[in-house]
This record gives sequence, C-alpha cells and structure tokens, in this order.
Amino acid sequence: MSLIGAIEAGGTKFILAVSDEDFNILDRKVLNTTDGPSTLAQVTAYFDGFPDVAAIGVAAFGPIDLNPQSPTYGFVLDTPKPGWANFDFLGYLKNWRDIPYYWTTDVNGSAWAEYRHGANSEVASLLYLTVGTGVGAGIIVNGQLLSGFGHPEAGHMMVQKNPRDRYEGHCPFHHDRCLEGVASGPAMEDRWGMSAKELKDDHEAWMIEADYLAQAAMTYTTILRPDRIVFGGGVSHRDVLLPLVRQRFAELMNGYLATPVLDDYLVPVANGDDAGILGCFYLAKSAMTRA
Amino acid sequence: MSLIGAIEAGGTKFILAVSDEDFNILDRKVLNTTDGPSTLAQVTAYFDGFPDVAAIGVAAFGPIDLNPQSPTYGFVLDTPKPGWANFDFLGYLKNWRDIPYYWTTDVNGSAWAEYRHGANSEVASLLYLTVGTGVGAGIIVNGQLLSGFGHPEAGHMMVQKNPRDRYEGHCPFHHDRCLEGVASGPAMEDRWGMSAKELKDDHEAWMIEADYLAQAAMTYTTILRPDRIVFGGGVSHRDVLLPLVRQRFAELMNGYLATPVLDDYLVPVANGDDAGILGCFYLAKSAMTRA
Repeated sequence: MSLIGAIEAGGTKFILAVSDEDFNILDRKVLNTTDGPSTLAQVTAYFDGFPDVAAIGVAAFGPIDLNPQSPTYGFVLDTPKPGWANFDFLGYLKNWRDIPYYWTTDVNGSAWAEYRHGANSEVASLLYLTVGTGVGAGIIVNGQLLSGFGHPEAGHMMVQKNPRDRYEGHCPFHHDRCLEGVASGPAMEDRWGMSAKELKDDHEAWMIEADYLAQAAMTYTTILRPDRIVFGGGVSHRDVLLPLVRQRFAELMNGYLATPVLDDYLVPVANGDDAGILGCFYLAKSAMTRA
Repeated sequence: MSLIGAIEAGGTKFILAVSDEDFNILDRKVLNTTDGPSTLAQVTAYFDGFPDVAAIGVAAFGPIDLNPQSPTYGFVLDTPKPGWANFDFLGYLKNWRDIPYYWTTDVNGSAWAEYRHGANSEVASLLYLTVGTGVGAGIIVNGQLLSGFGHPEAGHMMVQKNPRDRYEGHCPFHHDRCLEGVASGPAMEDRWGMSAKELKDDHEAWMIEADYLAQAAMTYTTILRPDRIVFGGGVSHRDVLLPLVRQRFAELMNGYLATPVLDDYLVPVANGDDAGILGCFYLAKSAMTRA
C-alpha cells in the first residue's frame, strides 16, 4: 500500500506529515521556516525516510503561481520574505522525487479539508474564510477549487467602513478599504492596543469585527451562492464572534436572498488545526488518481 | 439537419428565434410579455411553426429556480410581476414538446454568448456584468456557469458610498449599500433627475458611476480572478464610462494583484443585442449533446 505525504508550508512553520491511503496520520514533523532552499532540504530529508510516499499535497503560503500554463508554475512569486521570492518550490520537489504533486495555496488546502472531511462534507459548494494574520478564502464550486488568472485573494474585497470605526487600516495596498485591512488579527491588535485574544467578550471590537465579516459573507453570498461559509483562523476561534456575524448578516441581507438556515450556513471549522494537512492528503490522493 | 430554438424571456418582451446547428439565425419574433400562461401559449404557437427544432435554450428573467434537485426546478419564483410568481415555465414547455431544454437566467444567457462567441471566446473564465434596469452578473469558471444554492445575484454585493454621492439608494432591500442600489439605470435617473442617456459626457454622474463599477470589478477580481470582465446593459453602452472605470480600478487596486492589461480585462460586450439569443442557441446545443 502506498503512503501519502502532506506539506503545509506556512510563513513561520512547515508541517510535514505522512498518512496511509485512508488518511490515517502515521507521522508528523514541524519545522521552522527559514529560506526556500534550506527549508526544502529539510523537507526532502524528512520524506527520504518514507520511500513509499507516492504522492504529496503541498499547501503553500503565497503568493504562488497556480497556473499550469505559466513558465513560473510552482514558484513562490513576489514576496518580502527573504529567500522565497521567485523560488521554484515545486521544481525543487520534482527534482528530488518524480511523483504526482498537488500544488495549491495554504488556504485552499484547508478549504479542501473542510469540503471533503467531516461535518461539511455533505455540501456541494463551500467558501472557507480564514481570519488570522491575514484574511483569505478558498472557494469550491462545481466540485473544484476556484482558480482563474490567479488564486483568489478574497480578503482584499472592498468593505464599507463601520461608522464607529476610526482605525486607518492595516493593508499596505488598500488601507481601510479592504476586509483584511480592517478585520485581520494585526488590524484588531493595532486598533485596540491589545490582541484579539486579550479583548473581552463584551468589547465593542467584536461588534465591529462581526460587521465586517457579515459584509464579506453578504458579498460572497450574492456573488457565489455557496451552500456554506466556514470560518477558520485565529480570530474566528472566539465563540462570541459567529453569533454576532449571523445577526449582522441577517440585518444586512434584509430578507433579499434565500440561504440555508444561518446556524448551518455560517459555521466554524470542523477540522481545526489538522485541516491543512488533511487537505494536503486528500489533494495528493486526487493527484495520484489523475496521474 | 436539426434546428435550435432560443427563448430570451425578459420582463417586458420575449425574443424568440430559430437557428441552424451552426448558429445562423433563420427566424426571429418579438412578443410583449403578459402573464405566464398567455405568454407561453404564444411562445409554443411560434415554435409549432418549426417542428424540426430539437432543443431550446431558455434565458429567463428571475428569480428562477435553477437547482435540478429542487421540486420547483424550472419555476419562476417569488416575483411581483402579475401572473408569473410560482409559474412552472419549464414544465409548460416540456408538456408541449418533450425535447432537451437548457434553463438559465437572462444574465447567464448573455454571459454564455460572450464566453463562447466572438472577441471574448479566447478566455477561460469570464464575468459578464449587465448594468441597466437592474445590475446582475453571469460568471463562468472551469468552463461552467457558476451556480450554487441559487444563481448569483452579484448586483447586490456591498459597495462603499462615494463621498460625493448624497443619493439614498434605489434598492428596496439594501438602499444605498449595494451596487444595484446606487449604480442601476433607475438609480442614476432618480439621483440626477434625468436618464443616463440624457446625462452629458462631462457630468459628474459618470465619475461616480465609474467609482461604483470599479469597486465591483475589484471585489469580483479578488474573489474570482476571472480572465475578463465584460460590461453589458444600457448604462454600459456609454463610451465615456469604461475608460473611467479602468482608471478608477487601477487606483483602487493600487498594484496589489496581477490582472491582464486593463484594456483587455475590463471590456464592452462583443455580441451586442444578440447576446441573449446567441447564448440560448449555444446552451441549447450543449443540452442536445448531453441528452
């Protein structure tokens, strides 16, 4: 029986894992992310210990090139992170072991886990929104991860400034005009002088955060009409948040469009911290079948 | 050789047409829209004259039920239009002649024409935005019309109020908070006291309209990353508008995401007034193949 590999490649740490074909996790290792070549050398050294790994799913921090027609397919693109800009991540792996790889973004990896594994696997279409250091979305429609000219950067959609919010915004490109600029973890910390973790449940921060996430959910709903929107990432962990988002979403939508019952529509993650590597396993298996 | 039929079912008029399998239009008729049963009786009477029509594409005003699993699939849903709410449009046709039908929204019909026929047929993914009496979008990703829990109602995405705009908005649900509420033809007429056609090229109306359409294009871009956004509908006909939209889009995006060159990315319709029936023909042909 073949084994499957997972590389959840984050900007601060890499999680490597190996499973059997039924997605039972057999081994796992965490690395600190350094530069591209040094980190990948550690990655391949780890998988050298598992010669039966026959396909690997890679969910990488970005921006990355996902277009198979592009000459830089498989590369990390322009990033301020030292030793990663224009690094041929996928090419490095293929040179090391010529097996099928599924190459996608970190957000897409988690989105795919939510879509395929656990409580959300009953739905046909899904948007996974992560709200943490950044804000991003993985989108599944017609059974496929949505990708076009590039991968979604749905955290940079425009929002209306909450009238009680005086914060100038955290996005270096769009300031307070985009979702990430006003709703990411660093935006919350910068605005309130303490981290989201430190903010009490009755702090007005949560009403303002809920307004922005509800605006995002409304815009995603009108454009994509997904069967479900799943909230992940550090900020979304707070129990106080999702009920406020549902309430504000209902106010904003104002009865205009049919959606599933909101308790089943705007939901927390089902797979928690394992979502990233689970998504890699599922995607790796699909790459094996395809190859 | 079989013939193909098209029903472009609008709220004020129906356009019926017949083509050969190469999409050459052989005949065409326009009806005024009355109630559901009376209008459909005229539709079937027209196609009785073409017994060789072997498949029909229907692009209907909405809201309509597009979900094949739904008990009301093929129905016009809740609408204030007399004689249409809960009318089984597709069932009426199937009872009359049992051939393959492709059932979709009017906006999707035009979107499909832009995707398959003419200048835009080179791209892999496309968003067609109509800005007229209403604002709506048809979206093609992975070679398919995007649809989920229902069809997109992307005209109701949220926008930021332009700081120079004092208009209270035209959307009965979202007032000035959604795109349709501030950017539709009726919103322009209500705001300025004259129709979009009457507004001179140097009127500030066009700068404000361009701001809203650029905001929409930015949000669509970040979420969907389409290869092209095509602008149709009465308001988009004005030559002054698209250059302003491109300029404002570049300001808002602020270099954040790679897109195609803007002159090739934000473009006018290629098929003009024939888009609706052309889309019906193409979709009808796909239904023939599928059947």
